[in-house]
Amino acid sequence: MGEAIERLKTYLYRPIDLMHAGAVLGWDQQVNMPEQGVQARSQQLATLSAMGHEIITSEEAGWLLEAAEAEAEGLDYDSDAASLVRAARRGYDRYTKLPVELVVRATQVSSQAFVAWREAREKNDYAIFQPLLQETVDINLEKAEHLGYEAHPYDALLDQFEPDMKTADVERLFTDLKTGLVPLLQEIAESDPLDDSFFSAQDYDIDRQWEFTMLLLRDIGYDFKRGRQDKAAHPFTTNFSVNDVRVTTRLYPRRPQSAIFSSVHEGGHALYEQGIPQEFDRTALAGGATLGVHESQSRMWENQVGRSMAFWQYYYPIFRAFFPDALGDVTLEQFHRGINKVQPDFIRVEADEVTYNLHIFVRFELEKALMTGKLKVADIPDAWNARYEEYLGITPPDDAQGCLQDIHWSHGMIGYFPTYTLGNLMSAQLYAQAREDLPGLEAGFTRGEFRPLLDWLREKVHSYGSKFTAPELLQRSLGQEMRAQPLLDYMREKYTALYNL
Amino acid sequence: MGEAIERLKTYLYRPIDLMHAGAVLGWDQQVNMPEQGVQARSQQLATLSAMGHEIITSEEAGWLLEAAEAEAEGLDYDSDAASLVRAARRGYDRYTKLPVELVVRATQVSSQAFVAWREAREKNDYAIFQPLLQETVDINLEKAEHLGYEAHPYDALLDQFEPDMKTADVERLFTDLKTGLVPLLQEIAESDPLDDSFFSAQDYDIDRQWEFTMLLLRDIGYDFKRGRQDKAAHPFTTNFSVNDVRVTTRLYPRRPQSAIFSSVHEGGHALYEQGIPQEFDRTALAGGATLGVHESQSRMWENQVGRSMAFWQYYYPIFRAFFPDALGDVTLEQFHRGINKVQPDFIRVEADEVTYNLHIFVRFELEKALMTGKLKVADIPDAWNARYEEYLGITPPDDAQGCLQDIHWSHGMIGYFPTYTLGNLMSAQLYAQAREDLPGLEAGFTRGEFRPLLDWLREKVHSYGSKFTAPELLQRSLGQEMRAQPLLDYMREKYTALYNL
Repeated sequence: MGEAIERLKTYLYRPIDLMHAGAVLGWDQQVNMPEQGVQARSQQLATLSAMGHEIITSEEAGWLLEAAEAEAEGLDYDSDAASLVRAARRGYDRYTKLPVELVVRATQVSSQAFVAWREAREKNDYAIFQPLLQETVDINLEKAEHLGYEAHPYDALLDQFEPDMKTADVERLFTDLKTGLVPLLQEIAESDPLDDSFFSAQDYDIDRQWEFTMLLLRDIGYDFKRGRQDKAAHPFTTNFSVNDVRVTTRLYPRRPQSAIFSSVHEGGHALYEQGIPQEFDRTALAGGATLGVHESQSRMWENQVGRSMAFWQYYYPIFRAFFPDALGDVTLEQFHRGINKVQPDFIRVEADEVTYNLHIFVRFELEKALMTGKLKVADIPDAWNARYEEYLGITPPDDAQGCLQDIHWSHGMIGYFPTYTLGNLMSAQLYAQAREDLPGLEAGFTRGEFRPLLDWLREKVHSYGSKFTAPELLQRSLGQEMRAQPLLDYMREKYTALYNL
Repeated sequence: MGEAIERLKTYLYRPIDLMHAGAVLGWDQQVNMPEQGVQARSQQLATLSAMGHEIITSEEAGWLLEAAEAEAEGLDYDSDAASLVRAARRGYDRYTKLPVELVVRATQVSSQAFVAWREAREKNDYAIFQPLLQETVDINLEKAEHLGYEAHPYDALLDQFEPDMKTADVERLFTDLKTGLVPLLQEIAESDPLDDSFFSAQDYDIDRQWEFTMLLLRDIGYDFKRGRQDKAAHPFTTNFSVNDVRVTTRLYPRRPQSAIFSSVHEGGHALYEQGIPQEFDRTALAGGATLGVHESQSRMWENQVGRSMAFWQYYYPIFRAFFPDALGDVTLEQFHRGINKVQPDFIRVEADEVTYNLHIFVRFELEKALMTGKLKVADIPDAWNARYEEYLGITPPDDAQGCLQDIHWSHGMIGYFPTYTLGNLMSAQLYAQAREDLPGLEAGFTRGEFRPLLDWLREKVHSYGSKFTAPELLQRSLGQEMRAQPLLDYMREKYTALYNL
């Protein structure tokens, strides 16, 4: 690396350390903090974030960035040095393109919006949230103007979460997906439902559930010398360096599948972070590429691997030995059908693989319409319910189980939801290629061998850190554009067998 | 508070938040961190500390401080405003009186010294540590010159840890104490030894030990809504605000007394921090007064309360119910004697109440002699062993159990040790007064009632936060100077009964 880029890299140590320190405080808040610690913790997090922000948006940062960009001009686009400069520019622009006044206002509104949303959801009263959601929408419209866009204001918002992806790209992909998914769901709905009643029929000991998730994490390759698992109300993954990547899970006596798939999902995120090259640590190149690429990793381990027959050929005998009373009469095939039951429901985070993306379509379409003024904030509940009826064939009984269920808008985030489905698409694309590249991949799963897949992901995805956007990464690792077909193929094959379609 | 003092107070929010964020990272490092997280964690801690340091020592801080001092001139010395300015001045001077070059050198030497000390202790080879200890002594001599002193260079070092206390004061107090302690120990040594073999005779279940320590903490008044207990190799207390004060303990199957007294000791520190007025939080007035005053609180709960007969009249039936197999044949009186057994030994941190201060005398005398050049670093092992023979009647078999046992010097800290004994002295002074002020105090212990003592400490000690130095605090709460007699009286009375002297 040249001198100017080296100087930029070193300059960013402090904001990166502050960000990671903030992540430790955030982890602690969700895992350990006593209830009355919350006010001081918010102040500490605000201080760390403000100080990091000041450094990143300083005049000095601007000069260093310009000098580094000049130095990077002749360099290979894919080189570490050029990629570091690009990543730093993205961060700088994200913070400096928005006027400070707007950032402050957005923070204030979102803290009020969060409180209002929580109350609205509790009381099932959309009217409580509506005025703050209106302000949130207005602020996001302002943001879009400052961030800039060519075709659609939603492009600017989406770009914050999934750079390089345009609204039109997402529309095309989602249309392709919807065209295949809706009939698939229709066929499933007309088939005999699968049975998963053995999960809720009796208690599964919490400590044993915990042990089983620890075993799974260890087996898939999660390195406990560089991480740990804890319990938290909402499972998440966080990292303070590539050598300290932590996951959380949650345990319910009558929903052991929740702990299993939470742990494997978060484990997928964590394998990605632990797989980032050591030399990227403490630089703008660490961390996953984008939210979508991150989700491709977690969803692949959760679904393509964790809900496969091959996986449970190995694990079901072990799992049943953990819970002989509950599962004594349940065969491997019954179990596998149980964990793959498709059932249209109101709540996104509890959705099965097939219906999950339909939940996302609803949100994407409403957000887009809000940004063009085609949809009024006051009309969200009706529009929401109408789309649930259309895509899922069910109407939410109330707004708490409808448009008030997600936290995202209350945090001011519009443009985030599509990344979930983009992650699902990429998980299927990557997995299809892995199957092609690695003969005997799934035969390995039946023996508890996951190292070939992990090594493949290390090479194709993890080793790039955050050098590339999602389309750039897919081009380099697969030579492909993002596509819906692999996910449709995967689902069609899997559910045809499960439901005898 | 006037405008200038208010401005100073606000200016210090950031360094205080950074310090508390660092404390969270430090706590996590000792309680949770996976082993390979250590390098990134050191970098993060170094960044937080450097950024806090820069704010505290900035020119702006200097101006704000001077303006605040001008404003404080007419104010009552004891007022919050005037005290805040004094506390800020102490912090500012501590950092700015030392040249940056010296601070950097001290940090470098201490990180090397720590590594050398650990190796020296492991290999029982003083020669490995000696050159770095020499550098540490030299740096401390330089520090003393910069910090300034009137009578003795050790005054300057001591003042870092126990402001307002002079070497001559400590000498006088320690001489008084030694004059009473040495004959007491002699008499004990000539008596029949007490028996505590029931502790090591069989395993005490670790989970039950944990439960018992949780019960103790709850009962003495530790607020779990504003704190939590965890396990750590070296018990400690830390706080991130007055509303998040955490303790740790350690559990050994054959030393249940270790967990009990660690928890109660750290609980004493934590009651102090939780007792600081809410309005002092996030200011220079939060935190305990001095190290010595802090230790007076932990030692009082550990010893005057936790090793008393009254305490165990209430708790022994419960403790025995936790461990019926191990303690079925052990009476309350036998148990009480077991936890108060006096036994000269080599290791300070494992010492009983009577011998503990003798360990401190050795360290204080050697440190003082090092500062005047009367003792050479090369001669420490001999001088150490000779004094152990003189005060405790035993000679360490090797340096690992002798002059290499403590971590303090390896961290560059000279002048710290006396605060332990000053804490013991103050614990006895305060406790004697509490007994006078609160008739029926110990009768209450026999019923598990500790609230009167806690309320008394809240009023006499905790409510002042860090407004005063130790002598100032004793003057205000007891109208006394620091004295050795109350500790001697307490020990004489207690051990006369225990050993039939």
